[in-house]
Amino acid sequence: MKKVVIFGSTGSVGKNVLRVIRKDPKKFKVMGLCTNKDIKTLISQIKEVKPNYVCVRDEKSAKVIKNYLPKKIKLFKGDKGIDEFCSIKSDISCMAISGISCLRPLLLNLKYTKRVALANKESIVTAGDLVFKAAKKANTEIIPVDSEINAIFQLFDRKRDSSCLRKIYLTASGGSLSNYMQKDLKRVTVNQALNHPTWSMGKRITIDSATLVNKGFEVIETHFFFKIPYEDIDIVIHKESFVHALCEYNDNTLLSCLYSPDMKKPISFSLYYPKRQNLVQDKVFDKAFSLSFFPINYNKFPLLKLILKAAKKKDNSLAVLNACDEVAIDYFLKKKIKFTDIFKVMEYIFRKYPSCKIKSLEDVFYWDDWARQKTRNYIDKL
Amino acid sequence: MKKVVIFGSTGSVGKNVLRVIRKDPKKFKVMGLCTNKDIKTLISQIKEVKPNYVCVRDEKSAKVIKNYLPKKIKLFKGDKGIDEFCSIKSDISCMAISGISCLRPLLLNLKYTKRVALANKESIVTAGDLVFKAAKKANTEIIPVDSEINAIFQLFDRKRDSSCLRKIYLTASGGSLSNYMQKDLKRVTVNQALNHPTWSMGKRITIDSATLVNKGFEVIETHFFFKIPYEDIDIVIHKESFVHALCEYNDNTLLSCLYSPDMKKPISFSLYYPKRQNLVQDKVFDKAFSLSFFPINYNKFPLLKLILKAAKKKDNSLAVLNACDEVAIDYFLKKKIKFTDIFKVMEYIFRKYPSCKIKSLEDVFYWDDWARQKTRNYIDKL
Repeated sequence: MKKVVIFGSTGSVGKNVLRVIRKDPKKFKVMGLCTNKDIKTLISQIKEVKPNYVCVRDEKSAKVIKNYLPKKIKLFKGDKGIDEFCSIKSDISCMAISGISCLRPLLLNLKYTKRVALANKESIVTAGDLVFKAAKKANTEIIPVDSEINAIFQLFDRKRDSSCLRKIYLTASGGSLSNYMQKDLKRVTVNQALNHPTWSMGKRITIDSATLVNKGFEVIETHFFFKIPYEDIDIVIHKESFVHALCEYNDNTLLSCLYSPDMKKPISFSLYYPKRQNLVQDKVFDKAFSLSFFPINYNKFPLLKLILKAAKKKDNSLAVLNACDEVAIDYFLKKKIKFTDIFKVMEYIFRKYPSCKIKSLEDVFYWDDWARQKTRNYIDKL
Repeated sequence: MKKVVIFGSTGSVGKNVLRVIRKDPKKFKVMGLCTNKDIKTLISQIKEVKPNYVCVRDEKSAKVIKNYLPKKIKLFKGDKGIDEFCSIKSDISCMAISGISCLRPLLLNLKYTKRVALANKESIVTAGDLVFKAAKKANTEIIPVDSEINAIFQLFDRKRDSSCLRKIYLTASGGSLSNYMQKDLKRVTVNQALNHPTWSMGKRITIDSATLVNKGFEVIETHFFFKIPYEDIDIVIHKESFVHALCEYNDNTLLSCLYSPDMKKPISFSLYYPKRQNLVQDKVFDKAFSLSFFPINYNKFPLLKLILKAAKKKDNSLAVLNACDEVAIDYFLKKKIKFTDIFKVMEYIFRKYPSCKIKSLEDVFYWDDWARQKTRNYIDKL
């Protein structure tokens, strides 16, 4: 029986982790659940999986839940509580906290678990070097839950492949706005931007899919997970979201990994690896279907270009742009700025930030704070 | 520098082997060339690669070529000559003799080479058990050159996968006659049947692709190469011939192997493995394209059903049907029987053959002879 701890259990990925575990309750024991403040969901999860530990970041919510908790379940609360919760020993830690808040728990937890199933992009984008150095030191494996990176993980064998790999292709559905003309993007509503054609995900990642910032983040994840130079990672538009990634070798052979666009698939992989979960057959070949591929027009996605340009600088620019993107999307979702303003502010911040190296967790948070402040100031003046 | 011997150097696959080797002459030394009787092609090959040994099966042709050969090249002739030629030591033997004639050289040569690049289906179809037992005894690896089987070889890792593999899918273009109605098959001409939409291959295999006998043979190859039960191997129609095979795992993930339909690709793989040849990029993602998949209608392909039924008997039926198929196609190509007669005679022979086990090379040839005779008798009475 594998001991599992779930960070961010009440979010979209966290719920899916529990859906996977629910099918095989004898294989997994959920030791701990951690959330920010979604008490209602947390209570029903506690009833189901009976964890030994619960952690609630928001102090008010923690106070509320205290009354509902059986005495044998230990409660951790606040930021200090999360730090303590991180030292619970497990076989697998599911890191599904959204945004930059995942970084500190990830780094703290690495030495207490054998495997991290990592569903958080921002920790790799802002601090890829720090994370993989810490994982190596702790001798902990990190399995990517992000479907494209998970697909490469299934295909790529560094020892066998690194001398003869030519390129990695990440597929992109094109997001919710791929059929919009450039001139119409100004008038895009929140609902239009949130209407992703194939994937059901959180709000920020859905907007990031429309701007392809998300795809830029995946390029960065690919770079850090598999030590692949940026120039060997490319993107191809594939609207069906069934092929998640392809590895191209020097002899023009491609290997690809395919599964239906459902986060439970890569989550299941990360929990069962090197084995696989035994599921009822999808029967994809029972009917005719086709898979289409289009070259990407980078000019249609200026934010993707910006992210890739920043990535190659190997400095604090990704910490800065990630924070800026999150704040800008928050304003857009609250209908305070236009869709196209997201680019405007990102481009502004990228011009203004002072470049320096990221050497520690504190550096990441310093530049994260700096960018949030600058972004808010800029938007307030719009 | 790898020492290479090519059996069947003047055929379609043999020529492609030399096209691959030509691009990297410092990596390979062609030790020996063996052909049946295409002297003209052989002479130009000898001039190019300057082998140490040459073998010509047809005695008359061997006499003719003797005058053209430099003295330092040793000539082997006739069936006895092939047997001797088989004991030339090499790093890689390319087995590209067509039909059942490949079986004896393959078995004789196994202990003199480190690797067989096997382009011949019939040896596995008629004597898969004998071949893989002999390869194991000789500690010689066999790499499949047949593109579908080669694709599985690239994807499948027995140690890692066998406990969680659900199905192998071989793709089939549907062959030259996939757009014909059943009722029109009677009137199909030789040229129509030879007009394969995606692959350029020998004549018999092109007809076998139209009847899907070829795909049945590939199912059998898959069974023997990877020890996969017949019920776990399926076929899917894929007209573009770009995806060659897919492995489906218990968690509904599919891994697939893709390359343009060109025999040089799997040949190159078999020569360079575990490395890969460095080729100019194909740039498949520079333009839009799509890949289509259709469920196969087994009822449209009665010969495929017959082959698969025979395969499951694990007796002499495949040796019998392979011989019958070859003879029948020969008659069809000579315009002596109709396309639909191929099924008629196969079905007749399958009803009439006495079932017994194949225990030796002699058994295979006995039943091969038996079936050829029976087939000719039946066709002569048509």
